[in-house]
Amino acid sequence: MKKTVLSLLALASTLCVSAQETILGFSKAASEKELQLENQFEKELSTANLDEWMQRLAAEPHWVGTEYGEKNVKWMEKQFKSWGYDTRVDTYHVLFPYPKVRVLELTAPTKYTAKLKAVPVEGDPYTHQENLLPSYNAYSTDGDVEAELVFVNYGIPSDYEELEKLGIDVKGKIVIAKYYGSWRGIKPKLAAEKGAIGCIIYSDPEDDGYGRGDVYPKGAFKNKTGVQRGSVMDMPLYPGDVLTPGYAATKDAKRLKREDAPTITKIPVLPISYEDAQPLLEALQGPVAPASWRGGLPITYHIGPGPAKVHLKLEFDWQLKPAHNVIATLKGAELPDQWVIRGNHHDAWVHGASDPISGLVALMEEARVVGKLAKQGKKPKRTLVYCAWDAEETGLIGSTEWVEDHKAELQQKTVAYVNTDGNGRGFLGAGGSHSLQAMVSQVAHAVTDPQKGVSIAERSAARNVVNGGDDAFKLYALGSGSDYTPFIQHAGIPSLNLGFGGENSGGEYHTIYDTYSHYTRFKDPGFHYGTALANTAGRIVLRLANAEVLPFELQQWHSTIDGYLGEIMKTLETMRSDVEKHNAKVAKNQYGLANDPKKPVKAAEKEGEVPYLDFSPLQNVLADLKNDIDTFSQVDKTQLSNAKKAELNQALMKMEQALTSEKGLPRRDWFKHQIYAPGFYTGYGVKTLPGVREAIEQKEWKEAQEQIASLANTLKNFDAHVQKLNAIVQ
Amino acid sequence: MKKTVLSLLALASTLCVSAQETILGFSKAASEKELQLENQFEKELSTANLDEWMQRLAAEPHWVGTEYGEKNVKWMEKQFKSWGYDTRVDTYHVLFPYPKVRVLELTAPTKYTAKLKAVPVEGDPYTHQENLLPSYNAYSTDGDVEAELVFVNYGIPSDYEELEKLGIDVKGKIVIAKYYGSWRGIKPKLAAEKGAIGCIIYSDPEDDGYGRGDVYPKGAFKNKTGVQRGSVMDMPLYPGDVLTPGYAATKDAKRLKREDAPTITKIPVLPISYEDAQPLLEALQGPVAPASWRGGLPITYHIGPGPAKVHLKLEFDWQLKPAHNVIATLKGAELPDQWVIRGNHHDAWVHGASDPISGLVALMEEARVVGKLAKQGKKPKRTLVYCAWDAEETGLIGSTEWVEDHKAELQQKTVAYVNTDGNGRGFLGAGGSHSLQAMVSQVAHAVTDPQKGVSIAERSAARNVVNGGDDAFKLYALGSGSDYTPFIQHAGIPSLNLGFGGENSGGEYHTIYDTYSHYTRFKDPGFHYGTALANTAGRIVLRLANAEVLPFELQQWHSTIDGYLGEIMKTLETMRSDVEKHNAKVAKNQYGLANDPKKPVKAAEKEGEVPYLDFSPLQNVLADLKNDIDTFSQVDKTQLSNAKKAELNQALMKMEQALTSEKGLPRRDWFKHQIYAPGFYTGYGVKTLPGVREAIEQKEWKEAQEQIASLANTLKNFDAHVQKLNAIVQ
Repeated sequence: MKKTVLSLLALASTLCVSAQETILGFSKAASEKELQLENQFEKELSTANLDEWMQRLAAEPHWVGTEYGEKNVKWMEKQFKSWGYDTRVDTYHVLFPYPKVRVLELTAPTKYTAKLKAVPVEGDPYTHQENLLPSYNAYSTDGDVEAELVFVNYGIPSDYEELEKLGIDVKGKIVIAKYYGSWRGIKPKLAAEKGAIGCIIYSDPEDDGYGRGDVYPKGAFKNKTGVQRGSVMDMPLYPGDVLTPGYAATKDAKRLKREDAPTITKIPVLPISYEDAQPLLEALQGPVAPASWRGGLPITYHIGPGPAKVHLKLEFDWQLKPAHNVIATLKGAELPDQWVIRGNHHDAWVHGASDPISGLVALMEEARVVGKLAKQGKKPKRTLVYCAWDAEETGLIGSTEWVEDHKAELQQKTVAYVNTDGNGRGFLGAGGSHSLQAMVSQVAHAVTDPQKGVSIAERSAARNVVNGGDDAFKLYALGSGSDYTPFIQHAGIPSLNLGFGGENSGGEYHTIYDTYSHYTRFKDPGFHYGTALANTAGRIVLRLANAEVLPFELQQWHSTIDGYLGEIMKTLETMRSDVEKHNAKVAKNQYGLANDPKKPVKAAEKEGEVPYLDFSPLQNVLADLKNDIDTFSQVDKTQLSNAKKAELNQALMKMEQALTSEKGLPRRDWFKHQIYAPGFYTGYGVKTLPGVREAIEQKEWKEAQEQIASLANTLKNFDAHVQKLNAIVQ
Repeated sequence: MKKTVLSLLALASTLCVSAQETILGFSKAASEKELQLENQFEKELSTANLDEWMQRLAAEPHWVGTEYGEKNVKWMEKQFKSWGYDTRVDTYHVLFPYPKVRVLELTAPTKYTAKLKAVPVEGDPYTHQENLLPSYNAYSTDGDVEAELVFVNYGIPSDYEELEKLGIDVKGKIVIAKYYGSWRGIKPKLAAEKGAIGCIIYSDPEDDGYGRGDVYPKGAFKNKTGVQRGSVMDMPLYPGDVLTPGYAATKDAKRLKREDAPTITKIPVLPISYEDAQPLLEALQGPVAPASWRGGLPITYHIGPGPAKVHLKLEFDWQLKPAHNVIATLKGAELPDQWVIRGNHHDAWVHGASDPISGLVALMEEARVVGKLAKQGKKPKRTLVYCAWDAEETGLIGSTEWVEDHKAELQQKTVAYVNTDGNGRGFLGAGGSHSLQAMVSQVAHAVTDPQKGVSIAERSAARNVVNGGDDAFKLYALGSGSDYTPFIQHAGIPSLNLGFGGENSGGEYHTIYDTYSHYTRFKDPGFHYGTALANTAGRIVLRLANAEVLPFELQQWHSTIDGYLGEIMKTLETMRSDVEKHNAKVAKNQYGLANDPKKPVKAAEKEGEVPYLDFSPLQNVLADLKNDIDTFSQVDKTQLSNAKKAELNQALMKMEQALTSEKGLPRRDWFKHQIYAPGFYTGYGVKTLPGVREAIEQKEWKEAQEQIASLANTLKNFDAHVQKLNAIVQ
């Protein structure tokens, strides 16, 4: 039976080759050769290696600065070397807080002391180890506070709007927020902005516990003791070492004083389990929380404030720790100064079998096979750089410091950066620069799904259609949350982020339960999607490395960006119509008449009218771009002379940088890219055309008009770059 | 402060009179007189009476056949007599099952015996009484079954579709369903159709417990021991006594044998609390329930079947019991053979402070004041009949038997029936015959909201607008669930159902917690909405009784019915497009590719194509009707001669009957009305244009086309009736 499936897969694979005659960036002849190489690459991939290496790398906790982390680094260095890579370890010295004191107590109206401890479970020996990192939020400030508690749902902007309607102020209070709804770092940031003096984050069982499915160890989901660790540094301001914004945390770098570091939280913040959250929430009175706020605990959720009062005391051991990036280079046979960079982090909060080791072992297997093929004479044209980043969990620190350290050279030489992180069973998720969408789509049509025997593109399309969408292959836009951020958003290097998922499930994320035992039961048993990831990322890397003409495509890029502008214009119209409707209701006192007098709320007030903005600068430049891009697209670049190709490739390598602006985004100049950024108030969630979109969302109308002008200017530079491409190819 | 509010209310009330110069069915002069009468009526209404009478009527349990129920009947009879009404008690002899044996046990894999008992609570002396009716579902069949358990969500058709996809069959199993999602009687009916041998219904805390708010006695909501009683007789087939379908259950009536009564359930069914449900649900394995099925218990909801196995044993004492309807008549001064009937039931599952006493005391106060005014020489023109129905809870039995008993005379003499039932704080909800919409809207503009000092129409409009709707006053269409059903759906008598709510809350419905203590804390403290109900219903009754021309209006009727046809045609289009999309996905195996192979589901199959139906017979007759109605609407009928008015009123009284068809609806000929019916698979929920709509929903295409013809025929008869009206008024 198994054999039959494998033969079918092989057959399907062969069919793909013949069906797809040429691939982007390759002439017909070169396409055939490349596909042969890729198929050979695919055949060499071994699930056994992934399995064995995960057991090795995730055997013990290995957060930044740990002994086991350093052992992993040395072992990886050895592996890469053995596969033929020039390998070095680039080390930075970064501020890391270890939790010394963690106290959380309910002090009124009853007493409860939070346990702050996930329990070891049967069948998972890793959870019984001694040296597990206590649960905490890294880059919480030290603090010792006691105050009444307020439940703030997810603690995101719309929740505070709701609280304001209810007349509830968090000033001087400690807030308790559910995980999810935003990246976790937004919760203490907003709470502090609103005047709260402490923040507790908990995993509600509806979102992340028995409400999702059976809990660990019976099932994959979070049991009542599990706690999600995680960084709360203000990454939307800048990621990386908190003391060295915008430059490398080398040994002798000039550092900010800790108290001046703007990305450390203003108030203490601690994550807890739902077992620890229940007594706190149960002790709240005040209004019953709105229906959409209520979670899965067997209680009536009240908002407070009080009578529940809590005492939160946190102290950290703030030390500089070495963050070790493993950098393994395979010099290109023809174009050594054109680099394709591939990375995945290696540090974990605890064992990190899924996050990040599942992605890391796929990267390593990919590197091993590429190295083996190179030894057989099939060396890539361009240079490959395989990177294993340290200190990603604490704030993308290893990759950010490295990019900051080498920014000029990277901008000069890098073709693209391809990132992975945790991986699981299911469907390909691919995000990145939309100039790479057409290429990634071709690759997705060439990779066979391990379970269904069709291409992973076809499988994703089927799911999208079943969910009511269309079957077009699309890259999502990159926000933040993994190591692509410094590459694309700071250095303007075209980037991708790849991973499978959707059929793996669990509540192990950043807990002591993210272990080999959990992974092999619930995430990707047999590591079939691990090799699918190596196959997908490897083919992308090989195409980028071997292409005659770098496989950037701009028509899909244009329609994507045009779509973003359409969205923003529609958002503004919706805001205008909502405000008009709202103000009409206020004028007629309809809110007042509809309200229940026994549930008093703040009287509704008129909102400022939404102005019409002038989008024509953007519409005009996008129209110009469309013409120039259409012109460029009509040319078969593989037929150009070698000299022209070389010139074109140099220009293509710099293209994405034309989408950055040196002055960066308002209030956060580290973020240079003008098309993609993490949201200032969403964290990981992307904001496309961020300068314009966020100004509109925040109702900063003057800034919005300025950002339209600024973005139009960036797009004009980009258009000039496209015209330069046209000049080369004509 | 209180005085100021009252003065303001009086002022607002005065303003309403002057603002609204003429009212439907009255000349200008008659309008003034009528409004003066209504305002005088309003001033006499006393909240103190409502309070006192509720304490009297809800002092002890009083389900049909109880001693206390009989005491209430005698007391009410005495009251009505004292107010000047000719009062009699009409008694029927109806089958009533009292629960003798109730056993529910989990027998595997662990043991649990359901407690089946709600606890008395502090602060509510009524819950400490001895003679409370055990919790059960009336007209469950006797039974003793043991089988594996299956969780079926709400146990409605879409849930069984989901189970079929998952390959789970309930044949030979016992199902456990949540309350809500449909009228309760649908759950055992469908379960039996699907082959289940027993049915358990429980109140999930998300829908009806701590998930809604604080539980009783701290708050209004259902505590873990509360159980909702209720009838499960197959009322969508026919309501009323199960042994005398379509005719009165008089002492000597010929009765069906119990085993032949089609409205008794085919399988035993028992309602339980969430405390009793949790161990059963916790013991289930099998697939995790879909996210939308999961409730508020702190467990992972599985579907089963098994390993949970349950034993359900039910035995009832089946006896004929007397159902006493109190019938109080005030003979009309001018038109004694034109009756306005007003009713509310008096029986309750336990104390029934809210359901039905809150409505009943409003009806009584209304009758008292009308009687007082009559004694002062302000006797209504037409005859008023105030009714207090028995045995409503068990299946609308008192009212149904009475209507069946007097059908011919009622059809000859009744102008309209106005129903109320439980009442609470908040917004007017009004349902009924749409020929009465314009009149009810005028009344709603004349009644002042007790809390906000604007009209109840304005307050409802504000809420609708705030919730995204429009501000038009609309009657909802009547399904079933209270005593209007025999009047409108069986006899074709124009009917209304009135009640306030939306700001009262609770989980007391049909439990031992529906007491005076609960009502006065959570439902309508101070009984202000009780008098608002008396005011609203009383004004409607007085207008119907005193109108020169009966206040039926047909333009709003037409646009409502036309809207229903539009909905149905749209439904058919949506079904067609959904089937086309579904079949395309099946053809491309997109479901297969999207599915998780570790969660096996039944392979998706193509569905039969949805045909185009010929709606033109309905469109044509509605077009004709529009012309004839427009013609009728242009005439000021108050200016006709008295003889013409008398002739017109006679015709208007029969108009609704022209919307019935003697052969009734398919498979349920008791239901004669062709515009409104309770859904065959929703129970209380209305289906408008039911013959056509349900045939389409059930994909019975031949029947759908037949029902279109049949409905067109009914509407032609109605059009002929409208033409008759036009002949009178021209």
